[in-house]
Amino acid sequence: MLDKNQFESARLKAITYFKKAGIILTEEEKKSIEIADFGLSDLEKIGIEVLIYVNTAKVCAKEIVMFPGQTCPEHIHSTSNGITGKEETFRCRWGKVYLYIPGEKNNKPKLEGLDNYVEFLEVAHEIVLNPGEQFTLMPDTWHWFRAGNKGAVVSEFSTTSTDNQDIFRDPRINRFTKIKE
Amino acid sequence: MLDKNQFESARLKAITYFKKAGIILTEEEKKSIEIADFGLSDLEKIGIEVLIYVNTAKVCAKEIVMFPGQTCPEHIHSTSNGITGKEETFRCRWGKVYLYIPGEKNNKPKLEGLDNYVEFLEVAHEIVLNPGEQFTLMPDTWHWFRAGNKGAVVSEFSTTSTDNQDIFRDPRINRFTKIKE
Repeated sequence: MLDKNQFESARLKAITYFKKAGIILTEEEKKSIEIADFGLSDLEKIGIEVLIYVNTAKVCAKEIVMFPGQTCPEHIHSTSNGITGKEETFRCRWGKVYLYIPGEKNNKPKLEGLDNYVEFLEVAHEIVLNPGEQFTLMPDTWHWFRAGNKGAVVSEFSTTSTDNQDIFRDPRINRFTKIKE
Repeated sequence: MLDKNQFESARLKAITYFKKAGIILTEEEKKSIEIADFGLSDLEKIGIEVLIYVNTAKVCAKEIVMFPGQTCPEHIHSTSNGITGKEETFRCRWGKVYLYIPGEKNNKPKLEGLDNYVEFLEVAHEIVLNPGEQFTLMPDTWHWFRAGNKGAVVSEFSTTSTDNQDIFRDPRINRFTKIKE
């Protein structure tokens, strides 16, 4: 749960990252930035700031801002009830992102400060994305990602985004941010 | 048909537009920019410069550079053989784009200098896209678009790109650029 001040402060901070990345938003878009704390009320460590450009029945495009060291916790877009899970391409626009997927552990995962979450960050094959670099994840692939120490701005191109179908490793997670009135 | 010098000169020029738009590309991507003259050998007037980020069986994301006044000629992504046509969202990142779709003629279409093509530019409802503005086209919608006098950089988010299914108004058009050896 975030209080209104935390929400508004994160939204304004996210706008400064879009600016650093040279991404131009309309005033209406700036108001519609979503702050996702995954229900953990620990936004600085676990969270993303999201602007959805378009999400039709087939295609979704969004920008994700991550503050320094912020982590999107491990999850999977699973195929269920005959509906294929989401496939997604992450393209780093600014800063640096460490993306973790199944496979050989090829580096020490960036887990500093995440003691409270580390048991639910299992996949450990690291892919580093610098600006202009991208990676495509097919459905049913566990993954988590973390911004480097300057933060990051990441474009996501995917099939339809259906956050309520996501499965998270950490049972404490609820994808929908509550805002305290 | 383009000769090798024209191709290379357009590619290098396109890179300068990506730079103006603050879009960072890898060296490999810079080499893979496609120059589309639609077979008309009149690239300054009819053409686009395209970088495909990703094109899976479901989703495509690309960037389009348009030089000043350059036009993408009228076409449709049609549903045929039971395969739904491409849906696409154009998001202006830099410069200005005039997008034309079916509907009421609400302005004088930007046809200056296009005398040789004007009979194949029929739809006339104008949508102006400035940086940060976007428009989503569903399949089976005739459309054409033209850059303003500074040029434009436009992101396209869409379902799978299958250029060979596109239908163009102008029967002289061939989507595949030939390069003279």
